[in-house]
Amino acid sequence: MFIRKPAAQAAALSTGLIALLFSGLALAKPPKPKPKLLTTAEVIQQSPNSDWRDLDPQNTLAMELPQGQVLIELAPRFAPKHVANIRKLAQQGFYNGLAIVRVQDNFVTQWGDPNGDEPAKARGLGAAAAKLPAEFSIAYRGLPLTRMTETDGWAQVTGFVDGFPVAANPKQNKAWLAHCYGMVGAGRNEAADSSTGAELYAIIGQAPRALDRNITVVGRVLKGMDLLASLPRGGPNMGFYELPEQRVEIKSARLLADIPAEERPALQVLRTDSKSWSQILDARRNRGGWYVHNPGRTELCGGPPPTRPVKAAG
Amino acid sequence: MFIRKPAAQAAALSTGLIALLFSGLALAKPPKPKPKLLTTAEVIQQSPNSDWRDLDPQNTLAMELPQGQVLIELAPRFAPKHVANIRKLAQQGFYNGLAIVRVQDNFVTQWGDPNGDEPAKARGLGAAAAKLPAEFSIAYRGLPLTRMTETDGWAQVTGFVDGFPVAANPKQNKAWLAHCYGMVGAGRNEAADSSTGAELYAIIGQAPRALDRNITVVGRVLKGMDLLASLPRGGPNMGFYELPEQRVEIKSARLLADIPAEERPALQVLRTDSKSWSQILDARRNRGGWYVHNPGRTELCGGPPPTRPVKAAG
Repeated sequence: MFIRKPAAQAAALSTGLIALLFSGLALAKPPKPKPKLLTTAEVIQQSPNSDWRDLDPQNTLAMELPQGQVLIELAPRFAPKHVANIRKLAQQGFYNGLAIVRVQDNFVTQWGDPNGDEPAKARGLGAAAAKLPAEFSIAYRGLPLTRMTETDGWAQVTGFVDGFPVAANPKQNKAWLAHCYGMVGAGRNEAADSSTGAELYAIIGQAPRALDRNITVVGRVLKGMDLLASLPRGGPNMGFYELPEQRVEIKSARLLADIPAEERPALQVLRTDSKSWSQILDARRNRGGWYVHNPGRTELCGGPPPTRPVKAAG
Repeated sequence: MFIRKPAAQAAALSTGLIALLFSGLALAKPPKPKPKLLTTAEVIQQSPNSDWRDLDPQNTLAMELPQGQVLIELAPRFAPKHVANIRKLAQQGFYNGLAIVRVQDNFVTQWGDPNGDEPAKARGLGAAAAKLPAEFSIAYRGLPLTRMTETDGWAQVTGFVDGFPVAANPKQNKAWLAHCYGMVGAGRNEAADSSTGAELYAIIGQAPRALDRNITVVGRVLKGMDLLASLPRGGPNMGFYELPEQRVEIKSARLLADIPAEERPALQVLRTDSKSWSQILDARRNRGGWYVHNPGRTELCGGPPPTRPVKAAG
């Protein structure tokens, strides 16, 4: 007995439902036969290579944990100063030997320097900046947004840019990365401008959208969310591990650019400005097969664009 | 360095913000001073005992895993036949020795009989029904709904009944339990009426609201989500564990009514028809302190009502 995974199992809109949709329209002539909607799996299978992009070695961080590799795609368009700082920190080996220090259920997994709050013991940031401006939002106008039709009450406008989920307020001319599952942000203290990228977190539960525009989001996990989300939860103090031995060591965190080409993970990501991505959103909206009730919608945090192994050249 | 937990850290609406809210109103006389909004922690601390309820021994299932205890509150108002069946199964010891068979990241943890799909090997349901009607929704009219002001695009009406998150369509006179984090449903096959309660799942990621009205929801996890959500993820076949040794044994699952009174977990749940719950939702809507941008809203899946240890009588 099973229940179906929406994204993987999204099925074609049934003929009956298409008939129902058209019955509300007073058409002068019978509609052209509609192409059958594809499932997510079919979209991926049929997608042209041009709908996929390679990982940018300057914008992808590979973090090695005892449990395996976590890949993080950085978002320089949204947080240029934080991303530049994270690059410097990674190049200096700053994260190597640091640890996952906090796992709070249905909220975040967080990593950094366990001694970060004790100046005498804290690891120095070296050539990276110790102070950065908050990067909570950018200008909405001019943004190459692939807009969604759905809104969710959290923002007037939703869509995708560079593979990331984006919310926006056009009147204020502001756009920002949404705190969906798997998004990565830079921890901060009370001061809005107290994050540097030395301490990072990933969302591991229901999207905590109240954080949007309150903290700098720097990217998202491309691979390895299953590792970050299945770690033992910490204690009642916001999920911080109470004992040093509970922490999970970060063996290393390097930019792909600093890893020999032949050792880099060979992954591609579906472009969110592609027709294939738009077809996947349609597959999520229109469910057949196992589904009795067609939801007719999806949402901004309904799941990131898929990845695939790089195909052998041929 | 840290980021704040929204629910735990919700703080008072700042005086400045109150001034801003009032500046838009042309009032004939100055407004009465507004009472300071309480944080979630303050609401819980100040809540009267009458805002809390005890666990109902007939509606609470205690499932023992090697990792610890999981408590599930059943929802007889929404799924009376499934809940009655689950009670019978538990009383017969049906779940004892079965297993968690599937953990799919950002989706579900699922448990039941690993041999459930092989009639020759499957454990018999005994006095429980092998066939039940689907219980996807109930009548909206007459439901004692504590309504939320927020909508999220998934339903016209949202709110809480008996501690559960509820969505509704008044025109269709239908209400249903929403698939928020921690909600528990009854796995089914292709046929809408193929669930019995012998196989159950809990949501461990972003609320998969496309499942709403497609499967029978039977309750929610009151305690132990940290255990269910931190299990190792299964393989690419929808998260099903591929090897028997990956499965997590269910040592037992019993109704509290079938456990000696002195061994029952001593927990109370905040009533969702209480003033305290309404104050917690307000605290989630209005954030001060660490927050720079006040979200001004919360959502149906923004977190369940809190629990507390039963206070010593006196």
